[in-house]
Amino acid sequence: MNPLENIRVVLVDPKYAGNVGSICRVMMNMGITDLALVAPHKDLDWEEARKLAYSAEDMLGQLKIFKTLEEAVADCTVVAGTSARTGFYRDHAYLPREIAPVVLDSAVHHKAALVFGREDKGLFNEEIAVCTHIINIPSSELYRSLNLSHAVMICCYELFLLANNPSYVPPAECSPEADGKMRERLYETWSAMMLETEFCEKEKLDHMMLGLRRIFSRGKLTVNDARILLGVAKQTRWVAAELERLRTEK
Amino acid sequence: MNPLENIRVVLVDPKYAGNVGSICRVMMNMGITDLALVAPHKDLDWEEARKLAYSAEDMLGQLKIFKTLEEAVADCTVVAGTSARTGFYRDHAYLPREIAPVVLDSAVHHKAALVFGREDKGLFNEEIAVCTHIINIPSSELYRSLNLSHAVMICCYELFLLANNPSYVPPAECSPEADGKMRERLYETWSAMMLETEFCEKEKLDHMMLGLRRIFSRGKLTVNDARILLGVAKQTRWVAAELERLRTEK
Repeated sequence: MNPLENIRVVLVDPKYAGNVGSICRVMMNMGITDLALVAPHKDLDWEEARKLAYSAEDMLGQLKIFKTLEEAVADCTVVAGTSARTGFYRDHAYLPREIAPVVLDSAVHHKAALVFGREDKGLFNEEIAVCTHIINIPSSELYRSLNLSHAVMICCYELFLLANNPSYVPPAECSPEADGKMRERLYETWSAMMLETEFCEKEKLDHMMLGLRRIFSRGKLTVNDARILLGVAKQTRWVAAELERLRTEK
Repeated sequence: MNPLENIRVVLVDPKYAGNVGSICRVMMNMGITDLALVAPHKDLDWEEARKLAYSAEDMLGQLKIFKTLEEAVADCTVVAGTSARTGFYRDHAYLPREIAPVVLDSAVHHKAALVFGREDKGLFNEEIAVCTHIINIPSSELYRSLNLSHAVMICCYELFLLANNPSYVPPAECSPEADGKMRERLYETWSAMMLETEFCEKEKLDHMMLGLRRIFSRGKLTVNDARILLGVAKQTRWVAAELERLRTEK
């Protein structure tokens, strides 16, 4: 199958209908047609979107709308989010040209997502946390901030070029990778474990989890990997509960 | 000097002010600030352009307006024009990634231009003729035609990446290259020569000149090269005129 068909572009809380329309056109130009919006503004001017989608307006009828980013990427293995900022959990950012083989290799057998944030504020920390990879689009110091549709164009262009490069060899499937839904279950269990073992305090948990998400996303996380990590946390929670029980009995 | 500063984006007869504004932003994002318009529509809505230029609106005050493409690129050595079509004089088209080193190498010492045509009709044949190189932006069969500002983004992005690649080594200056003004003088003289020697008929001249322009633009055309070719044509015109004179005397 053509891996471009497995790639979903996810726009989180887009404000301007014109951008949504332009992005339909950009995506279709680059052979990518799966578009999802997360919590779009309720007054989005769909007529304006239709105007800018031009001949790609059919895509507006097919797009999916989700309440949360977690739901929009629940079936995706690689989830690459764009960010202009840097910081501890935004480390190890990839250039669009570097992320292209990561996304495309995964898209040969699984769904993969490119995630773009709000026009003004980008992605929030809790949304970045849901991403397995961070993309940083290079731009000039003269003017760092790209229009949303141009950011989408650069990422899709790199994927389109790679997919159409005759020397690109799609990987054979090895062990299946964990999808967004499984990853979120894993992180929930680890969060509970870390509190129950008193490894960290509640107010430091979010920060700690961002670090852990980065560690677990650094390489491919297979379904088997996720099962092992989930098992460790479940068993540890049982141990912590037993300890608590014995303490109470005393 | 930073070669990006020597690169001019030329928009021929743009119809939509929004595109002009978006292009200001795109260019500034990619560190390129020299914008020229050729024969823009007289009712262009500059307020709309300003809105879409966003923080790059200063560029609108600095842009240059020309009546013809020849004038807009008169001081440029490499003139790379985008075209979606193919055909004999549009052969040897470059991908944006392939043209980037050609444009950038030239821009280290000379002005270079990227030329984009009308939103609906692209560049006309006589404008393609003025270009030394043709760029073909790859796109999906689903929807070939890119919005103007996204086409500009892809070309500028490739130049920005190359200019900021630490392994890019700018070439040392050898002999200076002929600019657009010198090239047009050369082609005028050759046109006259070919008619006066009866090498080709008037109605076939344009077609023949398009072929010749491709041949002379295939490699770098230095000022010395242009002088030699100009000298050949001038001398030949003199010979043709002498022949005509003797014939008339008889």
